Amino acid sequence: MQLKMQIKIDGKIYDYKTIWMDEKEQVCMINQTKLPEKFEIFICKNYNDISKAIKNMIIRGAPAIGMAGALGIYLAIKEFKERNEKQKNKNFLKFIEKAKEEILKTRPTAIDLFNYVTKMYEVVKFTLKSTNDLEKVRINAKNKVLNLFNKNIEICRKIGENGEKIIKDNARILTHCNAGALATVDYGTALSVIRACKNKKIFVYVDETRPRFQGALTSFELMNEEIPHKVIVDNAAGYFMYTKQIDIVITGADRIALNGDVANKIGTYEKAVIAKENNIPFYVAAPLSTIDQNCKTGNDIPIEFRSEDEILKFKGKNIFAKNTEAINPAFDITPAKYITGYITEIGILKADELKEKINEISS
Amino acid sequence: MQLKMQIKIDGKIYDYKTIWMDEKEQVCMINQTKLPEKFEIFICKNYNDISKAIKNMIIRGAPAIGMAGALGIYLAIKEFKERNEKQKNKNFLKFIEKAKEEILKTRPTAIDLFNYVTKMYEVVKFTLKSTNDLEKVRINAKNKVLNLFNKNIEICRKIGENGEKIIKDNARILTHCNAGALATVDYGTALSVIRACKNKKIFVYVDETRPRFQGALTSFELMNEEIPHKVIVDNAAGYFMYTKQIDIVITGADRIALNGDVANKIGTYEKAVIAKENNIPFYVAAPLSTIDQNCKTGNDIPIEFRSEDEILKFKGKNIFAKNTEAINPAFDITPAKYITGYITEIGILKADELKEKINEISS
Repeated sequence: MQLKMQIKIDGKIYDYKTIWMDEKEQVCMINQTKLPEKFEIFICKNYNDISKAIKNMIIRGAPAIGMAGALGIYLAIKEFKERNEKQKNKNFLKFIEKAKEEILKTRPTAIDLFNYVTKMYEVVKFTLKSTNDLEKVRINAKNKVLNLFNKNIEICRKIGENGEKIIKDNARILTHCNAGALATVDYGTALSVIRACKNKKIFVYVDETRPRFQGALTSFELMNEEIPHKVIVDNAAGYFMYTKQIDIVITGADRIALNGDVANKIGTYEKAVIAKENNIPFYVAAPLSTIDQNCKTGNDIPIEFRSEDEILKFKGKNIFAKNTEAINPAFDITPAKYITGYITEIGILKADELKEKINEISS
Repeated sequence: MQLKMQIKIDGKIYDYKTIWMDEKEQVCMINQTKLPEKFEIFICKNYNDISKAIKNMIIRGAPAIGMAGALGIYLAIKEFKERNEKQKNKNFLKFIEKAKEEILKTRPTAIDLFNYVTKMYEVVKFTLKSTNDLEKVRINAKNKVLNLFNKNIEICRKIGENGEKIIKDNARILTHCNAGALATVDYGTALSVIRACKNKKIFVYVDETRPRFQGALTSFELMNEEIPHKVIVDNAAGYFMYTKQIDIVITGADRIALNGDVANKIGTYEKAVIAKENNIPFYVAAPLSTIDQNCKTGNDIPIEFRSEDEILKFKGKNIFAKNTEAINPAFDITPAKYITGYITEIGILKADELKEKINEISS
């Protein structure tokens, strides 16, 4: 038994995905900047809306923003088609390329965004080789985007199924950031493993994850599923590891280099080093698509720096004195030597197996 | 040249101590729960006010709350004397003992509170052996409290003088929590070292220090002194160490065991482990009085757990969903093996020298 995401609103339970396309072919997403206070749906009518949603973290989490990017390309195809019914495909590819560039520049660290958008772009280019009919391009693109959507869900479900096997009964699990259903289309990555433990007794320590408190999303998901958990400040993870109150750490990943180095939410590196120091296994749960074949090591992965205000203010109120300056790297690199294993859709891999497996799959 | 604390208010610079006794013999302290937004003085007229101020973190930092505790005993002496002018010392010692117990139970981790309060209590007991005159007791206690006050300042000044020698020009220093003038009477411990580097080019990374953001106090002090610095989330310290942007870490201490294990603000342990992993020296700046001869190792030091709301709310606003639970250990233990040295008023010591030096001093 494995749970899909459930959202409790006024005591009632609803099935939701993080992102989906409605019957009018608008892209809908749970507005994560409003959670956990308010449950609101954000609607994207064109690719500009998608870019804004990614940039402003209305949607976040590597697999989720990948999916958003793919849907953005689909919206761009429809947009061009509707505006230019008569001109046919004149300037069409240029328009799609512009959409692709705009979407890709929103957030640099997660590889999924690049992968998903590129896949959509390739379908467009491939279809244009054999036809000028934009309706055919649209249909092919729609098939592709729905295929990516279903695959995203299925891969996350499998990650949970595979990861569940390493979680012992009574395990006390630490997770950092939100690697939940809200970071994917459904299930999550690290939280898919936790969801899959429904029949075990487990307890989850939720890192609050400054500066943006994604721990609030994780605890929101766990609360909806009634999985026992408590929030801790990021600073306290070390205390609970040192005092032997944590048995295993599981996080997600934004990008994985071929040697197994992982880019993930700032603080992941600290938790991994402390886990190793205390002989606690540290697992990264992520789809194989998170591996970037162009990155030999973590040094090749770009780190996004975000606004100082994410640190200096909370809900518009100053935390620090006026004119205080801050530096805000959003991700860090965890070298492979700190990572016990990678929980993927094809099983649990070691760092030195990643390269081989990714070659098998892409060949 | 070493700087005392300076406070800028509306562009003007004022000399302030963190805590002092005014001419009416009221105890005044900078209200740290209002900083950095507002500069307010909190006035304590009796030992109950002192207890509340410590418990509610109007004053915090081990040497500062030690001083507050000592002044609390002095206020208790005066209080009894004024109320009981005729009864002389009947029930006097009982009253002082009650004050002592109440003050000591406010916060359990910092040893200074225990030390300072005990010293005052011993003066009272010692004086009562030779006289029943409470005015004589008051005078002796006043001499003692002023002596502790001046010693607190002088010890912190010397910590800065001694620590300055290990800071290289162009050093990039990480500090955690506030070990500043605001955590002592003046100068600070870790920040005393930084203040003593006025003629060197340095840069300070300030951990924001969740949940209570004491990094805001540190950046407030550094801003007043015009020492270059930036705030980072606690999560990011590892990133800056791994990317070789930090040369040295200096923190304060709330209590030091005889083997050199250090209790300090939650997160100190994480920073120390990461520093060692990256071959970055990690120093603890603290008066010798921080060493607790009754604690053989860090396991003997009690860890304070504080309210969940420190994590779950900011300025009354919920960060997490309603009914979310949190656990909030305020301190952690950093084993001696991660600590390069202890910057004290008598010089820089190694862990294995602490026991010997403390015996020399107390004998």
